[in-house]
Amino acid sequence: MNFADRMQEAVTRCGNAALVGLDPHADSLPEEFAAVRAPGATRAERARACADFLCQVIELAAGAVPAVKPQSAFFELYGAEGSLAWERVVAASRAAGLLVIGDVKRGDIDSTAKAYARAFLDPALAGESVCDAITVNPYLGADAVQPFVEACRAYDAGLFVLVRTSNKHSALFQDHGTPKLYEHVARAVDSWGSELIGASGLSSIGAVVGATHPSELAALRKLLPRTPFLIPGYGAQGAGVAEIAGGFLPGGRGALVNSSRGILFAYKQPRHAGLHWKDATRKALAEMVAELRTLTH
Amino acid sequence: MNFADRMQEAVTRCGNAALVGLDPHADSLPEEFAAVRAPGATRAERARACADFLCQVIELAAGAVPAVKPQSAFFELYGAEGSLAWERVVAASRAAGLLVIGDVKRGDIDSTAKAYARAFLDPALAGESVCDAITVNPYLGADAVQPFVEACRAYDAGLFVLVRTSNKHSALFQDHGTPKLYEHVARAVDSWGSELIGASGLSSIGAVVGATHPSELAALRKLLPRTPFLIPGYGAQGAGVAEIAGGFLPGGRGALVNSSRGILFAYKQPRHAGLHWKDATRKALAEMVAELRTLTH
Repeated sequence: MNFADRMQEAVTRCGNAALVGLDPHADSLPEEFAAVRAPGATRAERARACADFLCQVIELAAGAVPAVKPQSAFFELYGAEGSLAWERVVAASRAAGLLVIGDVKRGDIDSTAKAYARAFLDPALAGESVCDAITVNPYLGADAVQPFVEACRAYDAGLFVLVRTSNKHSALFQDHGTPKLYEHVARAVDSWGSELIGASGLSSIGAVVGATHPSELAALRKLLPRTPFLIPGYGAQGAGVAEIAGGFLPGGRGALVNSSRGILFAYKQPRHAGLHWKDATRKALAEMVAELRTLTH
Repeated sequence: MNFADRMQEAVTRCGNAALVGLDPHADSLPEEFAAVRAPGATRAERARACADFLCQVIELAAGAVPAVKPQSAFFELYGAEGSLAWERVVAASRAAGLLVIGDVKRGDIDSTAKAYARAFLDPALAGESVCDAITVNPYLGADAVQPFVEACRAYDAGLFVLVRTSNKHSALFQDHGTPKLYEHVARAVDSWGSELIGASGLSSIGAVVGATHPSELAALRKLLPRTPFLIPGYGAQGAGVAEIAGGFLPGGRGALVNSSRGILFAYKQPRHAGLHWKDATRKALAEMVAELRTLTH
């Protein structure tokens, strides 16, 4: 089944479009995983603490949400040990029935792009760490994205191409020109995805569109009726359900909404004071699921 | 010593600005490293074959050229084993006195960008695989590049921000708008680098500008008099010394010119037929060094 259909099936099964970002910030891991920041800890110990923590988060998320999004940067910090931790987290997520969106934001020319695509999407090469989809940076152009699109066709995988990111100053380059650069990228994403439309009517080539720009989000939704959106910016980054609603297709289809810190480090929020981190995360997950359920019906 | 000064010192010492790209394409490795493509080979065997090959290339390049540029994608293909191979190649390069430009093209928001920067540039975290500089993708905007700039300040490291890439269809987004997007990015690179100017008069924040667009290269050189250029596209990608000359500052300063396949896989060129791969690579290196020496005086 192609990625778009697997994604839509998972959203329908769970009744919500929540995507849990797995960003194991060393400074924020609960005290029982403090090895990650202990002065004398080895890279292996630090990486293991991250994976131990995330595997427990995955247990809490399994069955409740359709997908997780491990963030490569926090694993790369630990070199080869981080790579082993990444493999363990991806394998645990898949074993738990969660779709895995590898947040790697890769992008490079021809044969290099092909190598990245295979590293994350080719079951024969990626092995236990094969992702269902990855994030990709479009700056280099169509010929640089094409190898990733070909990999999606070959391995039934998906992409989320950066279109409008959720950071404060994303407009600096993304709003450049008339039409704006991000609109130009958006049209290219639609075109790249036109041959990978699944039974759901959605393409396996998606777009990253931040919830921190609600009007652009709604406009892009109209422009891209077949493109799955990965929507960051919900929760800790400030956007609520009102801001993300415009990113969905009728019936709450075609989008995944990411929260990372808001779920992983819920225990640090004043309103969760006194709760064990797992109870805080469980509560934050339940709240996100309930809120997003109002969009998916 | 800051990165710009180390780079300029290495170019002066070697008398040329050649940068050898370490892109271990499995299909192209010489027969004695055929384990990389053997049907039953493990990831460890494949990764080891890549690193074995590159370590021999590094021996040939040591003393002759100022720098090497390992390409992360070809290591990521082999997961944790690839990460170990990357560490071995980076450590061997540094031990051989070569500057290491990690071609990773990373880019992400705030704390994630910080994690990437530390993964490749922080000696305490990257350990044996710490790079002198890395390539960075600017699509997300200034706040996404800033953590990398801060890392350069903290660790005396360098960046090469993608401005105008060497691939065939790089114009699709990079030429968008008026002024063109890449000119807008170029001005931002100049501004980001303004506080990291070394004794050489160059900044540690550089730009990637492809040799396949000679007129843009020369125009950008005028626009960015303090910015080191990493110039891909020489050799196998088609550009010769005439195309790259415009990328240099007076006296042949301020640029590194990359060749990957043209050096690594010189043995596959008809004109080197019958030579052992090492002799072909030695010859291709000597030719590149002689050609680039005419620019650096």
